Amino acid sequence: MKIIEPTLLLDETKCRANIKFIADKARKHGLTFRPHFKTHQSLAVGRWFKDAGVNSITVSSLNMANYFAKEWDDITVAFPTNILEIKKINALAKRIRLNLTAESPEVILLMSNALDYEVQIMIQVDVGMGRTGINPTDTDRIDKMLNLIKSSPKMEFKGFLGHAGQSYQCRSKEQILDVHENALKLVQTLKSKYVSQFPRMIVSLGDTPCCSVADNFEGVDEIRCGNFAFYDLTQNMIGSNSIDQIAVALACPVVALHPERNEMVIYGGGVHLSKDRMEAEEGTIFGRLVHPTEDGWANLIDGCYVKRISQEHGIVNVPTDKQQMFNIGDVVYVLPVHSCMTADLMNEYVLTSSFEKIFD
Amino acid sequence: MKIIEPTLLLDETKCRANIKFIADKARKHGLTFRPHFKTHQSLAVGRWFKDAGVNSITVSSLNMANYFAKEWDDITVAFPTNILEIKKINALAKRIRLNLTAESPEVILLMSNALDYEVQIMIQVDVGMGRTGINPTDTDRIDKMLNLIKSSPKMEFKGFLGHAGQSYQCRSKEQILDVHENALKLVQTLKSKYVSQFPRMIVSLGDTPCCSVADNFEGVDEIRCGNFAFYDLTQNMIGSNSIDQIAVALACPVVALHPERNEMVIYGGGVHLSKDRMEAEEGTIFGRLVHPTEDGWANLIDGCYVKRISQEHGIVNVPTDKQQMFNIGDVVYVLPVHSCMTADLMNEYVLTSSFEKIFD
Repeated sequence: MKIIEPTLLLDETKCRANIKFIADKARKHGLTFRPHFKTHQSLAVGRWFKDAGVNSITVSSLNMANYFAKEWDDITVAFPTNILEIKKINALAKRIRLNLTAESPEVILLMSNALDYEVQIMIQVDVGMGRTGINPTDTDRIDKMLNLIKSSPKMEFKGFLGHAGQSYQCRSKEQILDVHENALKLVQTLKSKYVSQFPRMIVSLGDTPCCSVADNFEGVDEIRCGNFAFYDLTQNMIGSNSIDQIAVALACPVVALHPERNEMVIYGGGVHLSKDRMEAEEGTIFGRLVHPTEDGWANLIDGCYVKRISQEHGIVNVPTDKQQMFNIGDVVYVLPVHSCMTADLMNEYVLTSSFEKIFD
Repeated sequence: MKIIEPTLLLDETKCRANIKFIADKARKHGLTFRPHFKTHQSLAVGRWFKDAGVNSITVSSLNMANYFAKEWDDITVAFPTNILEIKKINALAKRIRLNLTAESPEVILLMSNALDYEVQIMIQVDVGMGRTGINPTDTDRIDKMLNLIKSSPKMEFKGFLGHAGQSYQCRSKEQILDVHENALKLVQTLKSKYVSQFPRMIVSLGDTPCCSVADNFEGVDEIRCGNFAFYDLTQNMIGSNSIDQIAVALACPVVALHPERNEMVIYGGGVHLSKDRMEAEEGTIFGRLVHPTEDGWANLIDGCYVKRISQEHGIVNVPTDKQQMFNIGDVVYVLPVHSCMTADLMNEYVLTSSFEKIFD
């Protein structure tokens, strides 16, 4: 196919290599690999995980769980349970093994009154990010929740779930490992306190920076990272991956050249890349250009990055010595700052191997 | 209908009043009103503009033009023409009066070789934003383009198009009026130079801040603003509108309470509100909460704003004295920072008058 408008390219070879990298690491450490599918949101990409031996997944909404339930029967919704969606919960719990996340006695109580089918409960603990989850030292609250779970015939305690998303603030492998070790300590303490009472309980952790870099998973039973399948510029800045592991790029037509201010305009804006940004050496950026090749892309084009963004426009910085590279009607490739958001906006992928679309 | 997940509410009364406000202003000044439909992207909302006497529109992509061509036959694509979409251009130009934007002789030449049906050309000039458009004093380049247009049997010069988007950096009505007066001077000079040669030529301007605040449109023939239909927190900060003119709010379930850090978590994140942000007095914010009413919403809830955002999570600041207002399972209403991006993500609206969905 000929690219004529903003199009999300997916390099299957890189993506499968990223999946294999984490799947192998999980196997080596005896961990269950339950990848987060909010990154790609695609049944087709999901099958590449099946090829790597994955049989349980994580999602971030009940709608996403419902979509993936077509091909997956063991799904964790890693988002505080929204009791208003109880009908969706019951419909899913009837069909698949559904693992829900809770962080308050209130929501456990509401669920126990409304569940028609059995669900597994992951108690979410805050391992330092400060977004969601109970303070893991607040064992009064944890015990209250465990008692409510035990007294409900429709709920079973599955374990503790943490997300060390503060790793996204890191800028080196050392910093990532610090975050990871601190999270480990918190969940290890919890596990040693509760494992005799619940011998089958698990501990689940799951951010891409820690899963990419760490090699100590003592006390952990499951990892849930997701972004690693595509990686992106943010993960590269954090220290999770190299540029050549990034598996998606947005192809964008060049529509205007402004050499007098070292800029060009591409058709590719906030509704394609998202408005997610990154503070780089050059200032705030929204993407970086790479050299297109016949079956994908190669290294970065020095000095060429998306510096501003509107709904449909991307404004690209083009240094003087790069201006002869670009003409109106060309298609340029942009590595995204945040691949999850770009993939959510674009909805479909074009494989660089065949330049054919994949759906679902 | 019962709201159970992030849902974009639309207050029809406010939206129709916003439309009438600008339609009346255009009529008073003898201007053609060609509203930008990238904000709502909805045929249903478009009909409210028809009710206000509008019969020509602006869009920001050929795909959007194609969608609106079901009900509109005079459409300007206010985005530098992407020659790669020439098949879409010809298909549309066959059916409707299609006005395309150009800012380089190169694109005019490419079009003149590929057009099968007649189009009108708006030459885009940069009236101070520095995003797209020719420097309006570069009359050599303008003359070159006009000569190429004249020599093509498929193109007609329609006029000059400017977008004073630098108004988005303003923080008062006085600053907006400065931006507007400077843009006016630039287009007035152009018009006086070219009007004898092209007596039917028009001048089109179109940002929401200037159209909302200004009352001098001397030399202007057409306005193309779009955001005003919904307005949002950014426009309010700029000085374009009052909070009670904002016509959309995202309804979000409350899923977790963290009184110990004055926060709660709502189901409503970057894939709903977008990651567009605003620098407010409190710091970076992503939305503000309003008091729900039976048929919409009332004033802001002091101190309650979305302070951080993930893919599906919104983290809301909740001062101590407001904590008793919120429970798990409640639905809160969030005014967006940028309504165009939120509407693009949400795809559909629920009317506050009936709590029924409108599509298309």
